[in-house]
Amino acid sequence: MSAASGDSRLGAQFAFLNEADRLKSVLRATTLVDGSRPENSGEHSWHLALYALVLADQAGPGVDINRVIRMLLIHDLVEIDVGDVPIHSANGLAHGSVDTMAAEAKAADRIFGLLPPDLRDDLRALWEEFEAAQTPDAVFAKSLDRVQPVMANLMSGGGTWTTYKVTRDQLESRVGVKIARGAPALWEWVRARTAPFFG
Amino acid sequence: MSAASGDSRLGAQFAFLNEADRLKSVLRATTLVDGSRPENSGEHSWHLALYALVLADQAGPGVDINRVIRMLLIHDLVEIDVGDVPIHSANGLAHGSVDTMAAEAKAADRIFGLLPPDLRDDLRALWEEFEAAQTPDAVFAKSLDRVQPVMANLMSGGGTWTTYKVTRDQLESRVGVKIARGAPALWEWVRARTAPFFG
Ligand SMILES: [Ca+2]
Repeated sequence: MSAASGDSRLGAQFAFLNEADRLKSVLRATTLVDGSRPENSGEHSWHLALYALVLADQAGPGVDINRVIRMLLIHDLVEIDVGDVPIHSANGLAHGSVDTMAAEAKAADRIFGLLPPDLRDDLRALWEEFEAAQTPDAVFAKSLDRVQPVMANLMSGGGTWTTYKVTRDQLESRVGVKIARGAPALWEWVRARTAPFFG
Repeated sequence: MSAASGDSRLGAQFAFLNEADRLKSVLRATTLVDGSRPENSGEHSWHLALYALVLADQAGPGVDINRVIRMLLIHDLVEIDVGDVPIHSANGLAHGSVDTMAAEAKAADRIFGLLPPDLRDDLRALWEEFEAAQTPDAVFAKSLDRVQPVMANLMSGGGTWTTYKVTRDQLESRVGVKIARGAPALWEWVRARTAPFFG
């Protein structure tokens, strides 16, 4: 690689990393564990990668925890353009809607498109894999993405369950099923602790 | 593993993950790229892991980028007890002082000590490796930890260089040498762009 092309490659890598910084300003419906303020999607992504590192023994057969960590590091970048769509908002209908998915694909074009082509293609494919939730790595990553806000709600005294008046059945269908798919013991453990909030 | 011991293992894993959440409330001297507010150490850790993922081609021989990412995810956890010690504070003398290092070791005992013994020992060893800055993985991780605030300062119009009246020689000795040790092309690239701030 010539010095000049190396220079423009680094320029593209830093352009992406500087743009990614904006994820720290995207606020989620969930608060910090101490309830003091909303969590942002940058620190959420860090916390989830740490979940993967610490809960790797909960992953099913065929899961590559290093790929799960990489997936979780980039899984929310599209929110820089689209914002966080809370799982319980609009009676559970906004998250995963056709409109939301189209907007996220456009955001992925723009944001991953800042990278040099090889990295753009790799990270875009990793994000698509997460979204599709079919491979063992993506299924486990999705389970962690669902269990971390449950833990924040448990710790902070109800959190988004109170905000959105979530019922036990809604928690089971919107959240529990997806945690259990990739990490059944995690759902069993946290479900037992949600009982007092859905009495 | 019996159900009961599995249950207490998960309890320890979640106790650690809930304690780790507090890193989101530790503020650094550096701001976000847009200068809007101080960066916290949780989102900083995420951004650094993303740096490792995107700048992996800058790592020297023998670097395992997955270990670098793991290292960066946990490298600042001790700040939950000790706080961030800015590199340019107290005329560059507070960071890495004997007192700071002793306080960080005590914090590591407490925080990693929340984990089950196998994970405690693994992550504690990874943190010690980062701190010692001798292995190729740790040297590259340290380079990224130094270059990310330089980029934030460049983007936000001076940042901590202005706050702490940093000179060109101080930037070179406190920061540049350490970036160059693990990632020489990164230091060359950013140093060229710091010139207007040290005119
Ligand atoms: Ca750091």
